[in-house]
Amino acid sequence: MQQVIGFILEIEKLKGVTRKVKPLGLDRYENSAEHSWQLALMAWSLQPYAPQPVAMDRVLRMLLVHDIGEIDTGDTMVFVQGGWAERKQDELQAVRRIFGLLPAELAEEMLAFWQEFEEGTTPEARYANAIDRAMPALLNLNNGGQSWKENGISYERVAGRIRGQIEDGCPALWQYLEPKLAAAKDAGFFGA
Amino acid sequence: MQQVIGFILEIEKLKGVTRKVKPLGLDRYENSAEHSWQLALMAWSLQPYAPQPVAMDRVLRMLLVHDIGEIDTGDTMVFVQGGWAERKQDELQAVRRIFGLLPAELAEEMLAFWQEFEEGTTPEARYANAIDRAMPALLNLNNGGQSWKENGISYERVAGRIRGQIEDGCPALWQYLEPKLAAAKDAGFFGA
Repeated sequence: MQQVIGFILEIEKLKGVTRKVKPLGLDRYENSAEHSWQLALMAWSLQPYAPQPVAMDRVLRMLLVHDIGEIDTGDTMVFVQGGWAERKQDELQAVRRIFGLLPAELAEEMLAFWQEFEEGTTPEARYANAIDRAMPALLNLNNGGQSWKENGISYERVAGRIRGQIEDGCPALWQYLEPKLAAAKDAGFFGA
Repeated sequence: MQQVIGFILEIEKLKGVTRKVKPLGLDRYENSAEHSWQLALMAWSLQPYAPQPVAMDRVLRMLLVHDIGEIDTGDTMVFVQGGWAERKQDELQAVRRIFGLLPAELAEEMLAFWQEFEEGTTPEARYANAIDRAMPALLNLNNGGQSWKENGISYERVAGRIRGQIEDGCPALWQYLEPKLAAAKDAGFFGA
């Protein structure tokens, strides 16, 4: 049991990993733990819009573990250009260390979910990735583009970076977002 | 889709509902969103210690929604005495309002998970409740009893309040915690 408790106290650190967007109405940056919770509920509630049947249990588990590597690497904004291969390598090393705190069977199970999400090839992983890409855009659409502006991110970079994965994993979600992003562009929500 | 997005933006507010314990190493209070995320992972990783087989998918979903009513009611420390019937009634009203933002089928599904957790009679709900009771104790055991001291909570009140549900839903977890709580008593981690 002490081994598992050690893991639970280690992942506690994800509450202190901050992202670039602020929760609506709060004057602080979002952390990756609360973000992961919201993604799970977003995936669950958007299930009727998945383009094909997905095993929601697998989606939820992927989203619960997908950011755990950031405990060692920190969060990197998805719009940062270059260095992604190294970053992903560092994250893999991180999750190996962190899941490695658990008994082998559990460690392998969680690592497999983390890798399925990263590879993004199963219907579940593609859907989960679409959710992960869409959520920060949804927050920015509702806070005047706070993190886009603070980080000088243009409309073209946002649309170019998130469109492919959202359209692939949940086309209906992209159809919802596309006109809203265009309107946000006209309203001056973007940087650069 | 706008209906579901409205729900996702409404539950955003759980990130601003603060609890009485501070995340380890951080000088702020924990919020109920990040707490819910950690409970899900705690339940998952302690599965080998469940006293009987539990459908983990159901446990995870219960823990993801169990605190959503606090968006309207706020968090109440489990050691507060009296007024629980009214509080639970208020929470039920709250989750009816919040899940009610969703299409009916989803609303009923989430409400059913919330109610199953509250009733605490199925093996899954009993296990989930044990996890919910144990997590803040685990944090207090690792931060010198911060929230017990700040709120003047005695060892007797902690043990008296959490023992029953933890022992019922996950006896091995209580066996782990009991000697640690006794040692914490000797070390002066409690208030009152």
